[in-house]
Amino acid sequence: MASETVGKVIKCRAAVAWEPNKPLSIEEIEVEPPREHEVRIKILYTAICHTDAYTLSGQDPEGIFPAILGHEGAGVVESVGPNVTDVAVGDFVIPLYTPQCRKCEYCTNPKTNLCQAIRATQGQGLMPDGTKRFKCNGKEIAHFMGCSTFSEYTVVADISVCKVNPKAPLEKVCLLGCGITTGYGAVFNTCKVEPGSTVAVWGLGAVGLAVIMGAKAAGAKQIVGIDMNEKKFEHAKLFGATDFVNPKVSGDKPFQQYLVENFNGGFDYTFECIGNVHCMRQALEAAHKGWGVSCIIGVAGAGQEISTRPFQLVTGRTWKGTAFGGYKSRDNVPKLVDEYLNNRLKLDEFVTHNLKFSEINHGFDVLHRGESLRSVLKME
Amino acid sequence: MASETVGKVIKCRAAVAWEPNKPLSIEEIEVEPPREHEVRIKILYTAICHTDAYTLSGQDPEGIFPAILGHEGAGVVESVGPNVTDVAVGDFVIPLYTPQCRKCEYCTNPKTNLCQAIRATQGQGLMPDGTKRFKCNGKEIAHFMGCSTFSEYTVVADISVCKVNPKAPLEKVCLLGCGITTGYGAVFNTCKVEPGSTVAVWGLGAVGLAVIMGAKAAGAKQIVGIDMNEKKFEHAKLFGATDFVNPKVSGDKPFQQYLVENFNGGFDYTFECIGNVHCMRQALEAAHKGWGVSCIIGVAGAGQEISTRPFQLVTGRTWKGTAFGGYKSRDNVPKLVDEYLNNRLKLDEFVTHNLKFSEINHGFDVLHRGESLRSVLKME
Repeated sequence: MASETVGKVIKCRAAVAWEPNKPLSIEEIEVEPPREHEVRIKILYTAICHTDAYTLSGQDPEGIFPAILGHEGAGVVESVGPNVTDVAVGDFVIPLYTPQCRKCEYCTNPKTNLCQAIRATQGQGLMPDGTKRFKCNGKEIAHFMGCSTFSEYTVVADISVCKVNPKAPLEKVCLLGCGITTGYGAVFNTCKVEPGSTVAVWGLGAVGLAVIMGAKAAGAKQIVGIDMNEKKFEHAKLFGATDFVNPKVSGDKPFQQYLVENFNGGFDYTFECIGNVHCMRQALEAAHKGWGVSCIIGVAGAGQEISTRPFQLVTGRTWKGTAFGGYKSRDNVPKLVDEYLNNRLKLDEFVTHNLKFSEINHGFDVLHRGESLRSVLKME
Repeated sequence: MASETVGKVIKCRAAVAWEPNKPLSIEEIEVEPPREHEVRIKILYTAICHTDAYTLSGQDPEGIFPAILGHEGAGVVESVGPNVTDVAVGDFVIPLYTPQCRKCEYCTNPKTNLCQAIRATQGQGLMPDGTKRFKCNGKEIAHFMGCSTFSEYTVVADISVCKVNPKAPLEKVCLLGCGITTGYGAVFNTCKVEPGSTVAVWGLGAVGLAVIMGAKAAGAKQIVGIDMNEKKFEHAKLFGATDFVNPKVSGDKPFQQYLVENFNGGFDYTFECIGNVHCMRQALEAAHKGWGVSCIIGVAGAGQEISTRPFQLVTGRTWKGTAFGGYKSRDNVPKLVDEYLNNRLKLDEFVTHNLKFSEINHGFDVLHRGESLRSVLKME
C-alpha cells in the first residue's frame, strides 16, 4: 500500500470541526505528503479526550477553526519526509502532543518534559514550517496539538511521534497518547509518591483512575477517590482505590476541612483531575500540613484562577502541576507500552466504548454525559 | 547570682504591649520560676522583627494583649524546672519560636520542622500547662510565640530553647532566632538551590538578604535583588546579589512579564520576603516555565489570598512556602551559630542599630521607616 501513496496527496475521511460548539462533520479531505522532518501516519485507532471536547466547545480562547481535532491515537507510518531517522514506513507509532526534540533548553533539563521546539506553530494549528497539510473542499484545515488523530491520515513532526512495540494492540495503547500517561506520570514523575503514602484523587474519570493506578503501583497505603457520581466508585476500586468520598457528605462544612478532620490531618499527596478551580483549592488545603503536595492535572476554563491563603504554603504544603505526567514523551511512551504488554499497567479497563469512526459524535455525547471513560474509535 | 533567684519570683523590667497599635511600655514585671520542663532565661540581647511589629499593629487577628512580645533573643539560663535535661544553669541559649519535641508526628518526619507539640497553647499566649509566668501590677501578661524576649527574664518550654557555643557573641547570634535562619534555610532546606542556579529575591530586608547570602553559599550564578527602595541595593551586593531591579522599571507592563522577558524566561528559584500577596504572584509567575520554584517567606496580612492561573503550575512551576527556613530548630540553630563562628555565615552586617532596651520603641520606629535591618537591644 505504501508504494501507491508515497509522495502523493491522499484523499481520506476526517472528522472536521468547522466551528465551535457544533458536531464534527465527517468529510473527505486531502492530506499532503510529509515534508522534511515530518511523518505521515495512517491512524488506525483514536480515543476522545476531554481536551478535544474543551476545544470543540469554543471555551478555549486559543482554539482554531476549522481544525481536525484528536490527540490520543495510534497508527502505522505510511511515509516519511527527508531526514526522518527515528521512524520508518510500517512502524507502529503513537503521535505525541508533547514533542521531544532532545536539543532544546527544556529537553536537556531533567526537571521538565515541556519541549519548546515547535510550541509556537503547534499552538497556531500549523506544522513547524508554518503551513498546513490538510485541505477540505479547497479550504485549508488547521492541525491540532500537533496530532490531529480524528483523520484516517495525519501528518506530524518527527519529534512528535514515537515507535512502539509492534506486538502492541493499537486499539489499547492509543490511550497512552494523553490521559492515562498524564495521570500515571503525575504520581511517579511530578510527585514521586513513596510507598506507604496517603493519596486523594478528585475526579474519577480516566485521568483520575490512572492516578489511582499509579498510586497503587507506587505502594500508597490509602487511596481515596472523590467524585459526586457514586457510580464511579466501584470502577475505581478495580484500579486500587481503598476509600471513597462524595463531597456532599461534608454538608455546610468546607469539604477540605471535612477531609482534614476525617483523614488524619490530610493527605501526603492530592491530585485534581477535573479542571475545577474550587476543587484545586480543596485539594491543596486537604494536603497535610508540613509536607502535603498537591498536583493540578485538570485543565481549568479560560481565565479562571486558583487561590488560597499563603499560610497554607508557609505551613508546608506544596502546589504543583503536571502536563503529560512529566514524561519526556519519545523516551517514555514506548516504555509505557512495554509496561502494558508486561501486565504492569492497565489499559483495557479504561475503554468503555468501542465505536466506529463515523460514530465520533456519539463518543462526545457519552463523554459529556459522564457515561464513558474512554471511547476508542476504529478508523476503518 | 543563680542561687539568689532560683525558685523565686523575679522582679525585672519588660516591655509590655498593653494594647494594639500603642508604643510598648517598660514596666516592672514579676516572672515566676520555671515549672516542669520549663526554663527561665536571663535575656541579654533581643532584636526586633517584623512579626513583632505585625502583632503590635493589631492586624494579626490572633494577637493577644497584654503580652510581652519579642522572639529573636539570646541569653543565659537562670534556672530550670524539674525534668529539664538538655540545658542547665549558666548555658548560653537561644529561645526558639518553632519548638522541636523530637517525638511528634512532625518531628519524626524528615520533611517538616513544624513541631506541633505545644502549638495550641503557644498560639494562645500560654505555657504548655495552660498558664502564664508573667504578671504586671497583679495582672497576668501573655507569652508570645513561646519566647517573649522583650523582658529581662522570660520562661520558655524546654523544647523551645537550644544551648549554643559559649564563645558566641549573643548580641549577634540572637538574630538566628528568626529572620536570618528563615531566609537562609529557605534556600537550603525548602528549595535546595543547586550550584549554577538563577535566583530572584523580592524585598531586601533582613530575610531577603539572608536568602541572598544563602543563594551565594549554594553557588547560584545570578542573584537578583528586587526592591522599591534603591538604597538597599548597595547593601545587598555585600551579601552576594549580582543584579538589582526596581519594579518601577516595568512601567505599565506586569512586572513578572518584564522579568521573564529580561532574565532568560524567568528564574530557577524565586523568594518572596515581603508579605505582599501581589509580589507572591509576581514571584511565582517569574519562576521559569518547566522547573521554576517559588517560595513564600513573607507573612501576608490576615485574610489576604494569593492567586494565579492554574496553567502557571501545569506548565511546571512549583509554589512552596517556608517557616523558620525548614530547620528543625534545636538540631540546627546551634550548628548555625558554629557556622557564624567559622565565618561561613554573616550576622554582624545585619545589625544596623545597637540600642538600649529602654529605646525599644525607637527600634520599632526605624523598622517602620525602613531604616533598619535589625536593631539589637541590650537588656542591661
